[in-house]
Amino acid sequence: MIDFEAIDAAIETQFDQTLAALGQLCAQPSVSAQGLGMLECAQLVKQMLEKRGFETEIVPSAGFPVVVGERSGRSDHTLLFYNHYDVQPPEPLELWDSPPFKADIREGKMYARGVSDDKGQLVSRLAAIDALLSVDGELPCSVKFLIEGEEEISSPNLPAFIETHAERLAAEACIWEFGGVNHEGTPVQVAGLRGICYVELSVQTASRDAHSGTGGSIFPNAAWRLTWALNSLKQADERIRIPGFYNRVVPPSARDLELLEALPDSAAEYRSRYELDGFIKGLQGGLDLQRESIFSPTCTICGLTAGYQGPGSKTVLPARASAKVDFRLVPDQDPDEVVLQLRNHLDDEGFDDLEITYLGGEPPARTPLDDAFLALVVESARSVYGVPQIIVPMSGGSGPNHPFIHTLKVPVATAGISYPGAQVHSPNENIDLECFRKGIRHVARIMVEFAERG
Amino acid sequence: MIDFEAIDAAIETQFDQTLAALGQLCAQPSVSAQGLGMLECAQLVKQMLEKRGFETEIVPSAGFPVVVGERSGRSDHTLLFYNHYDVQPPEPLELWDSPPFKADIREGKMYARGVSDDKGQLVSRLAAIDALLSVDGELPCSVKFLIEGEEEISSPNLPAFIETHAERLAAEACIWEFGGVNHEGTPVQVAGLRGICYVELSVQTASRDAHSGTGGSIFPNAAWRLTWALNSLKQADERIRIPGFYNRVVPPSARDLELLEALPDSAAEYRSRYELDGFIKGLQGGLDLQRESIFSPTCTICGLTAGYQGPGSKTVLPARASAKVDFRLVPDQDPDEVVLQLRNHLDDEGFDDLEITYLGGEPPARTPLDDAFLALVVESARSVYGVPQIIVPMSGGSGPNHPFIHTLKVPVATAGISYPGAQVHSPNENIDLECFRKGIRHVARIMVEFAERG
Repeated sequence: MIDFEAIDAAIETQFDQTLAALGQLCAQPSVSAQGLGMLECAQLVKQMLEKRGFETEIVPSAGFPVVVGERSGRSDHTLLFYNHYDVQPPEPLELWDSPPFKADIREGKMYARGVSDDKGQLVSRLAAIDALLSVDGELPCSVKFLIEGEEEISSPNLPAFIETHAERLAAEACIWEFGGVNHEGTPVQVAGLRGICYVELSVQTASRDAHSGTGGSIFPNAAWRLTWALNSLKQADERIRIPGFYNRVVPPSARDLELLEALPDSAAEYRSRYELDGFIKGLQGGLDLQRESIFSPTCTICGLTAGYQGPGSKTVLPARASAKVDFRLVPDQDPDEVVLQLRNHLDDEGFDDLEITYLGGEPPARTPLDDAFLALVVESARSVYGVPQIIVPMSGGSGPNHPFIHTLKVPVATAGISYPGAQVHSPNENIDLECFRKGIRHVARIMVEFAERG
Repeated sequence: MIDFEAIDAAIETQFDQTLAALGQLCAQPSVSAQGLGMLECAQLVKQMLEKRGFETEIVPSAGFPVVVGERSGRSDHTLLFYNHYDVQPPEPLELWDSPPFKADIREGKMYARGVSDDKGQLVSRLAAIDALLSVDGELPCSVKFLIEGEEEISSPNLPAFIETHAERLAAEACIWEFGGVNHEGTPVQVAGLRGICYVELSVQTASRDAHSGTGGSIFPNAAWRLTWALNSLKQADERIRIPGFYNRVVPPSARDLELLEALPDSAAEYRSRYELDGFIKGLQGGLDLQRESIFSPTCTICGLTAGYQGPGSKTVLPARASAKVDFRLVPDQDPDEVVLQLRNHLDDEGFDDLEITYLGGEPPARTPLDDAFLALVVESARSVYGVPQIIVPMSGGSGPNHPFIHTLKVPVATAGISYPGAQVHSPNENIDLECFRKGIRHVARIMVEFAERG
């Protein structure tokens, strides 16, 4: 039985080194969207794993390579850590109070692009490993790392990579790349992710724009075609009108609703943060809002483009118009099927002139709420945070958890270092050093308890 | 009785000087949209009128000033020329084969920004005056000029200017700022203009964009609100659904239809120029197409803007969305009334969150088809072109003819120098020198015959 006091002491002793390692990792740009510093960062991550005795390889994928590492432990149970070494672009640079690729510590926080998402999370796993090794000389369980370089650009090649390397990645459980506390400081377990299907709808009605005086009465107008096609997808009642779209939707279980009921009400925070007059569908807050925000699939117009968009007026009849549309999917919807349903719907409604460009997607996936590993991660938070994790049965957001849950067939649980003020994807991304400490301690406990019970 | 042969000979003798004057005028930029060179150009125009014995003044308006000139003639009948000294912006500059503000003559054409619209038209009036003065020493009729500087930005201050200076501008007839031949070389009389009502519709649903994963199921989405509001204005049957919108629409008369029937069919030209698959409303061509293109009011989306419009995907829920919309109006619709009807409609349909910004408008106006001056202009073309003007009862486009017809109460007729290849508002704007000659000769005849019969 490993002594958590000794582990926590080791984490503390090594804390400055841990921060230095995180600073070094943040200093290496790795912007997947811009192809900046990617291979250099993969090399650096590989060195960091090798330093901890991991057999490590930079494995090619159809996109940026994946760093895969493995080290055996006392028990033959195997835990997989999924993380990513790529970060969001740092722009707009002028809004940063310190350079994004130079970690800066101010008032108990460390600032840098990626310091939370996801380099801080990755380093928290390494710091837990360092502490376990220094106390015990060995890891309690076998550990594998899958550290990809395309998470910030929607992991387009990860499902195929996992399919190809399923044997090598075999494990009994997975700790996800994100995790942390909510605005009350309570640790959060996110037990699933909605899927996504992102498309561009476009229509071209002529080879060039026309003058609205000439064509207004007689020419087809791409902006009108797009407007009508979009209107056919969803009207003001918010019901998505694509036939079959809701067929596979699994409603929340009694346990899901129980968990939702236990979550803090976000209504007031949303209202004030976004200065909303109210919510759609007559929602006021509480369980109804929670339920709708997670268990209802969506059809969101993310962008519209057509014709003249500058100041004042221009009398132009647009030849081309397009919209970015994302569908958030709930179990058991499937993005490929949604694209087919969308195509059929548009054809049936007379919009066969509308082109669909599929820009990416991920199916939804959930770890069963009665999973033993999930329970272990939830409970192991108690000795760090004083309370177990609060369980969010599914996130409104999306991520590539489907191939882990359905290809590798491992339960996926979240634990980590983030907090609501982390500004991930924004200027002044940061970690709170106290949350960072706690996250490391939690990860160490998960490994120990997984080795014993897993 | 003035001898047209002598006049034509004088036009020919002076032709090089006329081209030099036009080149000089084109060399002076006067881009109203950019406020470039406006006062300098007004000064130059004033000098050009003064050189021909006109009492001339640069009269302030609420916008760019108006050049007003007057010279008496043998008869006390007064003809008003309406022109404008402003031009469209020259951009995109890289598509010009010669500098836009340096007139260049190549293969029987002169190229420059404004060389057709409207500086060439203005100089054609001056050249006719020069010829008449050189042959007769005096003008056959009194002539007034109203040369504004805001035609290319929708003449926002012209109606008020005409109201204020109605007495000074009093005349019996008006020659419009545009005119010329169609693609068959036949001179065209445009006996009216549709009106326009240009608005921006915008909606703001939150103080900032949200993540589509967070808000997709529960937040109002500005792009959806805009889509639904637009859809309420017009659906795929092309019928405009704003209550009262069609109330004032005067259907074409038997004479209108007769004139339309005599026009060349534009269907094939439109299809090939814009690579259209077809027309809306089941139109095939012929009289139906002509009638619809002119006598039917429109609701055209000129532009759409919301959220993310760059390459690839961004999962954003837009807080703001807007559309540019123009309504082309037919007699007796009124732009102010349309804005009111639009507001009422949006409110009634539940879109009181949609803001309407009025970006400008002009009521439709027509010169009666039995007007004697119109007939004079039509017939006087015969001795220049071999045929009288073909009459288009109304243009699909718009312009500020309403205050001339309804405030000054003068018939407005078109005559001039343009041709379908003139590329007005586009790079390589040009005049065909042969069309230019004929336009000058036609204007001279109009003045002589107006003096005798007017």
